[in-house]
Amino acid sequence: MDEPEHDPEHDPELEQVLAANRRFYAAFGALSVEQMSAVWLHEDWVQCVHPGWQLLQGWEEVRESWARIFGNTQRIQLEIASVSVHAEGEVAWVACVETVLSSFERGFDHAQIQATNIFVRHDGVWQLVSHHASPLPPAEEPTVQ
Amino acid sequence: MDEPEHDPEHDPELEQVLAANRRFYAAFGALSVEQMSAVWLHEDWVQCVHPGWQLLQGWEEVRESWARIFGNTQRIQLEIASVSVHAEGEVAWVACVETVLSSFERGFDHAQIQATNIFVRHDGVWQLVSHHASPLPPAEEPTVQ
Repeated sequence: MDEPEHDPEHDPELEQVLAANRRFYAAFGALSVEQMSAVWLHEDWVQCVHPGWQLLQGWEEVRESWARIFGNTQRIQLEIASVSVHAEGEVAWVACVETVLSSFERGFDHAQIQATNIFVRHDGVWQLVSHHASPLPPAEEPTVQ
Repeated sequence: MDEPEHDPEHDPELEQVLAANRRFYAAFGALSVEQMSAVWLHEDWVQCVHPGWQLLQGWEEVRESWARIFGNTQRIQLEIASVSVHAEGEVAWVACVETVLSSFERGFDHAQIQATNIFVRHDGVWQLVSHHASPLPPAEEPTVQ
């Protein structure tokens, strides 16, 4: 690392991306399909990989998956850490770690998730076009792809 | 889906992205750090999530991880399927499923992996800046993040 990276807090563009990322997790934490709908771009090419799920493609499929997850969840608590952000023109991507505590009818789930979120700036608003989330193991035991 | 999506085979720009994606998997299949080095952008902000690993950041960390994986692998066979691609300006991203058969000193591993690969066009060449790969379960048993 030759130069210190931009502090996103002081870069207005990156701060906008981070705000969009926070809106995504606020929608998730509120279990709100309506808020989730405002975060995503509604196109047939947007993509979503929930932990352990196959790829979902198109806003309709993505919306239905959130509705299903929210319908099965009584309460959720999210903490977002290790956030990094990069933008290039009208595209930006955020990597972060989600610590998710959720309660269902039958109990609790506690998970650490690595996420990559891609945003596209559309009419001046950063909107989510790809969410790839995958479980982090409790212990660090690397595997080969 | 209102309109049929562009056929990437007939869009020269998307075909270039897909060619870069194929070069990435060719490097992987050849267990070649040198080829892998030619595929990635060498910046301290590039990112890589191997299945079950924590996020690696910066080309040095990413390069070391491939060297470690390649050093522990005797042979690998990769098949890439369900490829979709989207470009927006100088950024493009590819989703695909990797079917990976690998042999180690102690045996075989067979895995299905969902990958999201982000490319940035740099001096006219599409280079990998983010690889997020995560295991797909053998059975479709959705989980909540």
